[in-house]
Amino acid sequence: MPQLPFVEGESAVEDPASIRYLAAWTLPDGVFDRYPNIEMIVSVGAGVDQLDLARLPENVLVARCVTESIGQMMRDYTVLGVLAMHRDLPRYIAQQRRGLWESGPVALARRRQVGVMGLGQLGRATLEALRPFGFRLAGWSRSAHEIAGVDTFSGKDGLLPFLANTDILVCLLPLTENTRDILDAELFAALPKGACLVHAGRGRQLDHEALLKALDSGHMRGAFLDVTEPEPLPADHHFWTHPAVVLTPHVATITDFEEGALSAIASLRAHLTGGPIQGLVDRERGY
Amino acid sequence: MPQLPFVEGESAVEDPASIRYLAAWTLPDGVFDRYPNIEMIVSVGAGVDQLDLARLPENVLVARCVTESIGQMMRDYTVLGVLAMHRDLPRYIAQQRRGLWESGPVALARRRQVGVMGLGQLGRATLEALRPFGFRLAGWSRSAHEIAGVDTFSGKDGLLPFLANTDILVCLLPLTENTRDILDAELFAALPKGACLVHAGRGRQLDHEALLKALDSGHMRGAFLDVTEPEPLPADHHFWTHPAVVLTPHVATITDFEEGALSAIASLRAHLTGGPIQGLVDRERGY
Repeated sequence: MPQLPFVEGESAVEDPASIRYLAAWTLPDGVFDRYPNIEMIVSVGAGVDQLDLARLPENVLVARCVTESIGQMMRDYTVLGVLAMHRDLPRYIAQQRRGLWESGPVALARRRQVGVMGLGQLGRATLEALRPFGFRLAGWSRSAHEIAGVDTFSGKDGLLPFLANTDILVCLLPLTENTRDILDAELFAALPKGACLVHAGRGRQLDHEALLKALDSGHMRGAFLDVTEPEPLPADHHFWTHPAVVLTPHVATITDFEEGALSAIASLRAHLTGGPIQGLVDRERGY
Repeated sequence: MPQLPFVEGESAVEDPASIRYLAAWTLPDGVFDRYPNIEMIVSVGAGVDQLDLARLPENVLVARCVTESIGQMMRDYTVLGVLAMHRDLPRYIAQQRRGLWESGPVALARRRQVGVMGLGQLGRATLEALRPFGFRLAGWSRSAHEIAGVDTFSGKDGLLPFLANTDILVCLLPLTENTRDILDAELFAALPKGACLVHAGRGRQLDHEALLKALDSGHMRGAFLDVTEPEPLPADHHFWTHPAVVLTPHVATITDFEEGALSAIASLRAHLTGGPIQGLVDRERGY
């Protein structure tokens, strides 16, 4: 992009008024005072919940990184989580640790429903990869979607009917005011007995204590978690040691540097030429 | 099947000469002396390696159980194993145990090859389910097969070229004289550095010490094992505690009683009517 000089880091800025775009994960304090002509922020990750959208100047656009790899990585992770829950992997990990050779029943995928919360790029990639296994598939999102072969639900009214038949729940929702603490005691109670959670959204969406209670009461059978609040998880947290929990350290996806740069360039080019900007954030929705 | 009386257990046999078929897992000693008119043995599992085929009377046919569920269960298990290896699950299980929050790199499926040994019902079901992830797919078997989108190899000459590019090796071979100890030091050495094993064939196909050496030297990155020799695995075996090994107690598949009975009935009906017998064992091949 020779038409747009690239400045790496604030110390290299010579003319603050010439800065039109900012690629960053979080924003330094006072950044809009120092660079009054910023037109667009490009998040270097797939999420924008780390930015306080309400405090950005109204005229500033925000774009997320949109890379094919992120969808693929998330799909690989969530299908791993779903199959691990489907095949009782926490039980066998715990048995291996104890040196116990004891087989449990084997369930058929076609007798289980996987329900995915969040039907954007990531949710759809997950559902597509789950299709060949024969799971009954369902999806829930804020606004209505139609996906062939998937029983879709939306909004507050759709949540309970969606949960009622979901044996393995996958959370891929963006973090917004509406999804904070959405995975709470009430939601878990609405799942059928023996349900499992695969959580690769954001840590703040999950009420940790409610999940532990649902696991300990036997209402829920297992959880496969990639995100917590805070991260890293404190050393004394029960998720580290709970026999029904598999915990990974926020590794479902990482942004490939090259692909992320290409996504940012595509957003800038679209802005410069007046084309549609991929990953443009609707600040009212929050994602 | 009203035309064929069913006798449950040897104590219920009134006329030994009238016994034409035997459904069993293993054969009691002297069974062919007691029932001289047996025409076919129906194994109640998917394998027949528990039967000593060489010692059966030549005129006795052997049929395996062929059920749709077994293919589905195996597919769910092997894809779980492949994704667990792909996404470094043993590392994260070990980290969880130590309370360590540390992320590693994330690989893309399209940059990895999964190679499946055994291209019958189970191997094909596994390959089909792996397809949407974008893994490069390869297969190896005793005799040549063609499968669309899968790089297939066969026989002794095909083994090394098959292994050379296989990052995640899945063993689904039947146990025969030719496959005993096939997963040995030489085979592991032929895999690229960092390769992983998913083993859901039979325990006697795997040289345990060779696998441990390959893992400890760093040549191999992990193993997801459902079968061992013997089973249960002895209490002091290193597989129980090795940080790169996930061990499950022979739970990849179980025969659903109803489906197994229907498979046996289909075999008997085919034999009675002279039709093709599903799962008929080629005694020379051994499966």
